[in-house]
Amino acid sequence: MSELFDKIVSLCKQRGIIFQSSEIYGGLSATYDYGPLGVELKRNVKEHWWQSMVYQNGDIEGLDAAILMHPKTWEASGHTEAFNDPLIDDKASGNRYRADELIEDHIRGLREEGEEEQAADVHERLVEALNAGDDMPEALHAIIMEEEIRAPDSGAFDWTEVRQFNLMFETHMGPLKEEGSKLFLRPETAQGIFVNFRNVQEPTRQHVPFGIAQIGKAFRNEIVARQFVFRMREFEQMEMQYFVKPGTQDEHFERWKAERMEWHKSLGIDPDNLRYHEHEQLSHYADQAYDIQYNFPIGWKELEGIHSRTDFDLQRHAEYSGKNLTYYDPFEQEKYIPYVVETSVGLDRTVLMLLCDAYYEEEVRGDTRSVLRFHPEIAPIRAAIFPLVKKEGLPEIAHEIENDLRKHFNVKYDERGSMGKRYRRMDEAGTPFCITVDFDTKEDNTVTVRDRDSMEQDRVAIDQLATYIFDKSRNWTR
Amino acid sequence: MSELFDKIVSLCKQRGIIFQSSEIYGGLSATYDYGPLGVELKRNVKEHWWQSMVYQNGDIEGLDAAILMHPKTWEASGHTEAFNDPLIDDKASGNRYRADELIEDHIRGLREEGEEEQAADVHERLVEALNAGDDMPEALHAIIMEEEIRAPDSGAFDWTEVRQFNLMFETHMGPLKEEGSKLFLRPETAQGIFVNFRNVQEPTRQHVPFGIAQIGKAFRNEIVARQFVFRMREFEQMEMQYFVKPGTQDEHFERWKAERMEWHKSLGIDPDNLRYHEHEQLSHYADQAYDIQYNFPIGWKELEGIHSRTDFDLQRHAEYSGKNLTYYDPFEQEKYIPYVVETSVGLDRTVLMLLCDAYYEEEVRGDTRSVLRFHPEIAPIRAAIFPLVKKEGLPEIAHEIENDLRKHFNVKYDERGSMGKRYRRMDEAGTPFCITVDFDTKEDNTVTVRDRDSMEQDRVAIDQLATYIFDKSRNWTR
Repeated sequence: MSELFDKIVSLCKQRGIIFQSSEIYGGLSATYDYGPLGVELKRNVKEHWWQSMVYQNGDIEGLDAAILMHPKTWEASGHTEAFNDPLIDDKASGNRYRADELIEDHIRGLREEGEEEQAADVHERLVEALNAGDDMPEALHAIIMEEEIRAPDSGAFDWTEVRQFNLMFETHMGPLKEEGSKLFLRPETAQGIFVNFRNVQEPTRQHVPFGIAQIGKAFRNEIVARQFVFRMREFEQMEMQYFVKPGTQDEHFERWKAERMEWHKSLGIDPDNLRYHEHEQLSHYADQAYDIQYNFPIGWKELEGIHSRTDFDLQRHAEYSGKNLTYYDPFEQEKYIPYVVETSVGLDRTVLMLLCDAYYEEEVRGDTRSVLRFHPEIAPIRAAIFPLVKKEGLPEIAHEIENDLRKHFNVKYDERGSMGKRYRRMDEAGTPFCITVDFDTKEDNTVTVRDRDSMEQDRVAIDQLATYIFDKSRNWTR
Repeated sequence: MSELFDKIVSLCKQRGIIFQSSEIYGGLSATYDYGPLGVELKRNVKEHWWQSMVYQNGDIEGLDAAILMHPKTWEASGHTEAFNDPLIDDKASGNRYRADELIEDHIRGLREEGEEEQAADVHERLVEALNAGDDMPEALHAIIMEEEIRAPDSGAFDWTEVRQFNLMFETHMGPLKEEGSKLFLRPETAQGIFVNFRNVQEPTRQHVPFGIAQIGKAFRNEIVARQFVFRMREFEQMEMQYFVKPGTQDEHFERWKAERMEWHKSLGIDPDNLRYHEHEQLSHYADQAYDIQYNFPIGWKELEGIHSRTDFDLQRHAEYSGKNLTYYDPFEQEKYIPYVVETSVGLDRTVLMLLCDAYYEEEVRGDTRSVLRFHPEIAPIRAAIFPLVKKEGLPEIAHEIENDLRKHFNVKYDERGSMGKRYRRMDEAGTPFCITVDFDTKEDNTVTVRDRDSMEQDRVAIDQLATYIFDKSRNWTR
């Protein structure tokens, strides 16, 4: 991992933004808790997404489906059969690895040693193996054997076969652990939308094209889960499935591909750090697929997927449930199973992107200042209020301002330490506006508002504070 | 269940408010999905709670801990050992029942037959049995035998012993189903707060007393789960744990008991349908406990618990983790493990209460009008916009109004069917304001705003609409 990434992880822990789950018990691997600042950041992102989807579009409806679903759902979606990772065990240590990742690490190693040609050859064989369907485990195993890839921990070359391992977390409903009671924690939120296509379409009387939007948790029993909140076992998705007439999917795909990119930019992200990436290998259900990638300190990585899923999901659910999922188009008087264009973004990855994009260090009077330059409308704390000193009525005035501004957004009162230290704490928290109540305030009812980014100060009348902050927030640019 | 309850369940399905999960696969028992109207209702309740806790109180911090936690958490909290239901099997049918509920049904039956004295006696023995600790299963079994309670389904009197069954959903992390990889879905959100006491207190520099608030899902593998969203296997809690100095818990308990009651009233709930209920039997961790109950159509039932939990949880986590969870009070210069006052409300139950409290039928010109009279700030759709006719530019004006109001709250455009039918649909959805664009609108830029409750109409200038709706919403009374 990069030095910048380490700094962000450490700042997250130290400032209570994000930390490992169950930390007092040594932590639960690849599971994270959001602290006071993190939860506000997440809330703001969710709200921004929901507004942009459900409130701004008359043709998009919201949904909140349960995490626990009928197991037939996952047979229909193909997850029971095909949602697998290829695993291999090192007999020497007993450790288990993802076969494809061992090979990827090997390719990286070759590149670092300048063996470009061999690296390219192995990469080609890896892509071939991953496309080999049922033969994939055997093909991956062959590469490991041929390349004599050793186990990272023990250094041994003593492997088992490669076996497929399903990534869904299993549980049981009811008191008996029999096959019929087996359930899965949903590995994606999308299926909750598909099985409810009719339950949403009918009462809302929406006509195709229309969309269903949902925010919710999903779970994947990843073997190698790492890179902080980038790949977690428990994570949150924001998904919108747009149902369209077959044959029109390309135009809707282009529209959503463009709209979703604009949305990320509207969060204040540096456009140079965002790009499209076309899938080399299409999933069985897709006829077109792009990712939006962000330039994380650990490299360009997927942030959001825009997928043209055809009628695969609705067809399968119709088949497995025996229910009619055909839509009747009253304008063109025809029946069809709609096609689906999906936009699926990781909420935790979006938060991680915001942290990476906003993190900034600069020298100020011989000292290093760390700042999170969030868009003010996304920042966990919108404004901090400081009394210059803890006496002569200044704290009382500051508390009055605090209580007034609380009605509009999240604020923080702080009277501890020097002004410099208070600014520093708020810079690290990404708070865009710091309001100081001083002795002049008692004379003229004005306060100082210090800008996080420019560090410049304005004198603002107390009764104009909310308007001032709203205006500056709306007009903020990187 | 009552007739009113059935009507509400049916309205929820029909209007896409709440319906059973995975319905196309025959449904997953005791699990529900929230449709377009339900998800907005839930969002509004969550937002109202979060604002009242985190934003309105400088001493309450937010948190969002993971559902998956280290299994030691549940040993420390006592859930692994003691979170059990006493179950008994009917050998004739193979059906399984909760022993205590069989006895409760029996008591109800006796009361209905006028056998008050015997009912009181059995009730007394039931309370004794539930307090019998390890002897509880045997004591419950004895009552079933003595009272000759028969199986509800088969009518047989042929029971197994009573056995304890743990209510936590089990799963496994990683590819092997070995003991060491066993995890549980959290049965309550509270423990996520306790294990993070330090992770929140230190970076926020809060002094005791202060609180931590969290909204999140929890899971209980209920054997008998019924009564719609009142008792679900997957549900959502809104919890705030307030950390106080030992000895001061009573005053904080009284404060939160009062504040939480006020909060429910602020949702527009009829105060006559709310009451306190003191726990007859205290949990092992509590030194005081009250419920806030709501008068559901199925009877007075728990909505929220206010519990004085002492230092039980922090003590146990300190013991099981070996970590120091002592707090140092800088003002009084003393060390202690804080006591905890908990407020814990079911989000789904709050939504159910809102539906029950708002549901209303009345005769209007010989027809029955069904209305959900939600507080306007809680209603899923704040305003609907109708063009009187689908021509002469009226839809265009209506869409302009729609797009303008969307910036402020959730709105719905509807041009289908007669005005009467459109009003009827919005009454059922609980939409407080219906705006109609008519021919006069083109002359004077005013529209008709129809009030859901009084059905009276006001003529309002288009540029005053948002203000009009905000004012009427704020000043709404039952």
